[in-house]
Amino acid sequence: MRTLKLTVCYDGSNYFGFQRQTKELTIQEVLEEKLARVCGEPVQIVGSGRTDARVHARGQVVSFATRGTIPLANMPRAMNSILPDDIRILQAEEAPDGFNARKDACWKEYEYRIRFTPQPDPFTRNYVWQLREEPDLEKMQEAAQLLLGTHDFSGFQSAGSSPVSPVKTIYVSRWQKEADGTLIYRIAGDGFVYHMVRNLVWSMVQIGLGKKIPQAMQQELQMQRGEFENSPAPPQGLYLVRVEYEPFLS
Amino acid sequence: MRTLKLTVCYDGSNYFGFQRQTKELTIQEVLEEKLARVCGEPVQIVGSGRTDARVHARGQVVSFATRGTIPLANMPRAMNSILPDDIRILQAEEAPDGFNARKDACWKEYEYRIRFTPQPDPFTRNYVWQLREEPDLEKMQEAAQLLLGTHDFSGFQSAGSSPVSPVKTIYVSRWQKEADGTLIYRIAGDGFVYHMVRNLVWSMVQIGLGKKIPQAMQQELQMQRGEFENSPAPPQGLYLVRVEYEPFLS
Repeated sequence: MRTLKLTVCYDGSNYFGFQRQTKELTIQEVLEEKLARVCGEPVQIVGSGRTDARVHARGQVVSFATRGTIPLANMPRAMNSILPDDIRILQAEEAPDGFNARKDACWKEYEYRIRFTPQPDPFTRNYVWQLREEPDLEKMQEAAQLLLGTHDFSGFQSAGSSPVSPVKTIYVSRWQKEADGTLIYRIAGDGFVYHMVRNLVWSMVQIGLGKKIPQAMQQELQMQRGEFENSPAPPQGLYLVRVEYEPFLS
Repeated sequence: MRTLKLTVCYDGSNYFGFQRQTKELTIQEVLEEKLARVCGEPVQIVGSGRTDARVHARGQVVSFATRGTIPLANMPRAMNSILPDDIRILQAEEAPDGFNARKDACWKEYEYRIRFTPQPDPFTRNYVWQLREEPDLEKMQEAAQLLLGTHDFSGFQSAGSSPVSPVKTIYVSRWQKEADGTLIYRIAGDGFVYHMVRNLVWSMVQIGLGKKIPQAMQQELQMQRGEFENSPAPPQGLYLVRVEYEPFLS
């Protein structure tokens, strides 16, 4: 048996998320079906984490064990030739026996993309959160900085979460503006509770639109689930960018 | 009867082009169906021109006559609330009796988008032509400049064209590189034969990749259909950007 690690990029627009479901099409189902063809046997993969319906990934990591003998160097091309063009294998690596893409992850990075679109824009509808009002970047930056370090993110956890500790350490939390006007929020941390990034983005956008002051973030970090009005930003702005298996070095 | 003029933006990825077909879903069919609801009677529209399957528009113009009494100012909102989110009405205007979006057009502008993507990129697969090799922008610019003015574009006409004069005047023809690396070709002219922009882009990319010299364009402009190997660049890079009903002023 070999243990393999794949880095996968996908446009989540047409999928009901990463995790296999009985009725709806998911990334996991498509990957397992194509891997079975390439490996010549049924394959069960483990993803570093779920992504929800319509959420994207530039660097999702999956692991699996197989008796398949395909050379590593041929794996991306073999897979990409049979995968739909909204899922691409970027890299294939051998991993130590027992490597588990979910349990062994040390930290992850996400991006959340927003565009100020006074006119409706069909071309980015699946790839950003389109806002009709322009949020104040400086205020959002101020709130983002308050997230650095170790906090209990219970207040930013949506119902339906798995029972994991809500205490997480955030290494990177900042907004930047691209040349084309896209606002990108980058966050890296040792773990994320359910809907955490989307709930944080929603809160920061309320701050950017002047509905709350940046310091509200500090109070919200003290609260428990349900203690303040929380709501996830829409899924199509979220990208899982990378998953790392060594500790974060700043 | 009123004659109305609509400016329409659409992501063509999920449509079999603008023009109504018996079996496949088209932009025209969707627009006519929703206009019938908003106007309270069947509506037949005329587009400024067809766009092929997967081709996009940022400023397609359509005209139609109706007895419907909806105020002009409410038209975009009323339509956008029932249209799928890949088609948006940008503007509605009253037009003179007998205005015809196709026959009355004086000039049009198209954009063609290319990206150099050494790694496959699922996110732009429907919106640019992804090239694995980077073309030389200066060489393509040299070829683009040779297209300015009045020429017989017979050599750049694909089979299946309607019988229009292949002599067209080109007012704008230039490449530019965006901050994010996207190469954009802009062309404006008083008319375009079938597949003309895509055939020209294919030829310029061959020049940019060093397979022909820029001056080859001059010879190709002397040739008739079929006299040299021509082939349209893929549809998803093409955008109909604007249609104007007054003469071009440089």
